[in-house]
Amino acid sequence: MTTSVFVGTSLDGFIARKDGSFDFLPADGGEPHGYEEFIAMVDALVIGRHTFETVLAFSEWPYGSKRVVVLSSRELDLSRAKGVVEQMSGAPAAIVESLAMSGSQRLYIDGGITIQRFLREGLIDRLVITRVPVLIGEGIPLFGSLPHDVRLQHLWTRTFPSGMVQSEYRVNGH
Amino acid sequence: MTTSVFVGTSLDGFIARKDGSFDFLPADGGEPHGYEEFIAMVDALVIGRHTFETVLAFSEWPYGSKRVVVLSSRELDLSRAKGVVEQMSGAPAAIVESLAMSGSQRLYIDGGITIQRFLREGLIDRLVITRVPVLIGEGIPLFGSLPHDVRLQHLWTRTFPSGMVQSEYRVNGH
Repeated sequence: MTTSVFVGTSLDGFIARKDGSFDFLPADGGEPHGYEEFIAMVDALVIGRHTFETVLAFSEWPYGSKRVVVLSSRELDLSRAKGVVEQMSGAPAAIVESLAMSGSQRLYIDGGITIQRFLREGLIDRLVITRVPVLIGEGIPLFGSLPHDVRLQHLWTRTFPSGMVQSEYRVNGH
Repeated sequence: MTTSVFVGTSLDGFIARKDGSFDFLPADGGEPHGYEEFIAMVDALVIGRHTFETVLAFSEWPYGSKRVVVLSSRELDLSRAKGVVEQMSGAPAAIVESLAMSGSQRLYIDGGITIQRFLREGLIDRLVITRVPVLIGEGIPLFGSLPHDVRLQHLWTRTFPSGMVQSEYRVNGH
């Protein structure tokens, strides 16, 4: 099993504004920075309800034909999705185990609350963070509270002409 | 005038724990990462009361013989400082002007609240941020709320064997 995060943030650490918009990120996603290569490597995406609602509003379904799992204990109208979507609820460890049993070994964990839940449970292996050179002051943070410090191993960093700085970290112990 | 910030943070953006400690940073400051060169370039440091109290507890005064200005409207016992210290209060713009008039053109702005105040007023020119590969979950954040987005220009990024990633940004319009 490998669980990865690939996410863009403002320099002050927000993945979206409070209303869920991310107009502070480059409109076209910026110069190519590895998203296509990253998503080609995963078997399934695990997202929260908020992220699901957000991507429903996109003109294009961003996850191609990948298996997408929406975590929610509430009723969800999955028919609005333009891709393959299923709903699950439960603890992160159980979700990961269930997905592994059904053939999804490489998971992309996305969405602020979902990433934070998985990090708190020690269930994130790799983090790729792309920082956009802007401060927005407030919004939905990438990181949240943790039961204890989490030491990371820095794997690499690269920069882009637009000013984006991308780093990959391995979460120690995984 | 040039106002600069040179600061270390956890990957989740904290410059210290809630109690002011920063045991999550490398104990010896980590491998040399430019602090000596940076401080050699400034005329004066501007810090808040919290930072002043924190450095008073250090075994060594970290600012050498540099002019140090502590911002506080409260009474302060400056005699405990092992270096050259003066106290000022007032709006950031007035502080900067007053320091320029008395010969300090290159300022190092330090401390969470002080950095945030100066950023909000558009009075930071350069930011050098060194990110340590650890998540601490909560603490004193480097950045705070802003009246509007602040676009930055990424100047350079370098990495260190310990996993520290250091970037310099120019605040646009300065």
